[in-house]
Amino acid sequence: MEKAFEYLNHYIKNDSIIGMGSGSTIERYLPVMKNYIEKNNLDVTFLSTSLKTEKALEKLGLEVIFDAESIDVAIDGADQFTSECIAVKGGGGSLLREKQVDYFSEKIILIAHMDKKVTDFNHVPIPVEINQYLYKMTRRIIEETGASTTMRTGDEGLFVTDNGNFIIDCTYGSIDDLHALQQKLLNIPGVVETGIFDKYIEEIISFNDDAFKTLKQL
Amino acid sequence: MEKAFEYLNHYIKNDSIIGMGSGSTIERYLPVMKNYIEKNNLDVTFLSTSLKTEKALEKLGLEVIFDAESIDVAIDGADQFTSECIAVKGGGGSLLREKQVDYFSEKIILIAHMDKKVTDFNHVPIPVEINQYLYKMTRRIIEETGASTTMRTGDEGLFVTDNGNFIIDCTYGSIDDLHALQQKLLNIPGVVETGIFDKYIEEIISFNDDAFKTLKQL
Repeated sequence: MEKAFEYLNHYIKNDSIIGMGSGSTIERYLPVMKNYIEKNNLDVTFLSTSLKTEKALEKLGLEVIFDAESIDVAIDGADQFTSECIAVKGGGGSLLREKQVDYFSEKIILIAHMDKKVTDFNHVPIPVEINQYLYKMTRRIIEETGASTTMRTGDEGLFVTDNGNFIIDCTYGSIDDLHALQQKLLNIPGVVETGIFDKYIEEIISFNDDAFKTLKQL
Repeated sequence: MEKAFEYLNHYIKNDSIIGMGSGSTIERYLPVMKNYIEKNNLDVTFLSTSLKTEKALEKLGLEVIFDAESIDVAIDGADQFTSECIAVKGGGGSLLREKQVDYFSEKIILIAHMDKKVTDFNHVPIPVEINQYLYKMTRRIIEETGASTTMRTGDEGLFVTDNGNFIIDCTYGSIDDLHALQQKLLNIPGVVETGIFDKYIEEIISFNDDAFKTLKQL
């Protein structure tokens, strides 16, 4: 993992705005990045994909902003990814903000453990962020797309996202066309965002204990 | 308008769940409907598209519920509509809830003044509900679809919807394909919902001072 983090550091450029993601890998990366920034005396500003990351960045003494003209690069984790550089994200529950920061960036770089690589998203839970109002009805309509669904729970009943929404995990036995599925889900009123990240991803860095690999789209 | 309201009353059936919309026409309709329900001793339950309508219904002594297995009919206003039974809604700012209630209903019935009929949606402001986080960036990306945009304002700065989001009014000089535009907007992370109602609408009742007309899809 250290080698992967070192490689990832090359995306931390002086005088840039970085969209910083969420999740356990990112949490472990932040102190490594902080050292790199200090050592190289870099001037870097961050936008964050979650309240948790926001706090972690501030605790490290890094500057967090809440709007920008543009974001140079987004660095984020992935719950699952394929060799076609498509990812599913939102397992941590910051789905909408993650997707905004990542999609609004010039480049998306993902980092994840090698065991998160899948051949397709069949039987993979796809998180979908939905409005609280009429959520049972929204759930039933989502199920009409062929999904088995589970409402995400937290410490006190249903899990609530940073945006005050619920998360529903949707599993499909077989997905013919991921893009079409994404459109179908987005067309359901009440669906705020899906965890399908099918925008162009610049690079996925995958690691295990000893090594790392990188994946780029053709 | 009275005649139109009398005609609309036929959709208020005993033992049904009605999705009740928002806006000035609906506000004027509610007492008329209340009389009709009383006179005919009907057992009707309501789901509402806005907090305002919720309160108005409760003030009239009508039962409001917050979830249901299904909604029999949605009765709502329209900001603009065409003879093809496509509407633009959300001018009042309850966009997401309106769209949920209307789309989740078995039937959608709209009622609006005749002067709200348009031949197309060119130069018509289309409300789009967006997440507060990174809204300036979301706005810039919406503008890349060719829209001139205005942030909706309220009494205290930017208007906030019942769901805690902002509304951005988008105007296009010329819309070639409304459905494609809707997809493009929904694909922007940060866009929660659009005011384009292109689902099958059963009937649009349009009125002026003296008369009313009804419009059904072929």
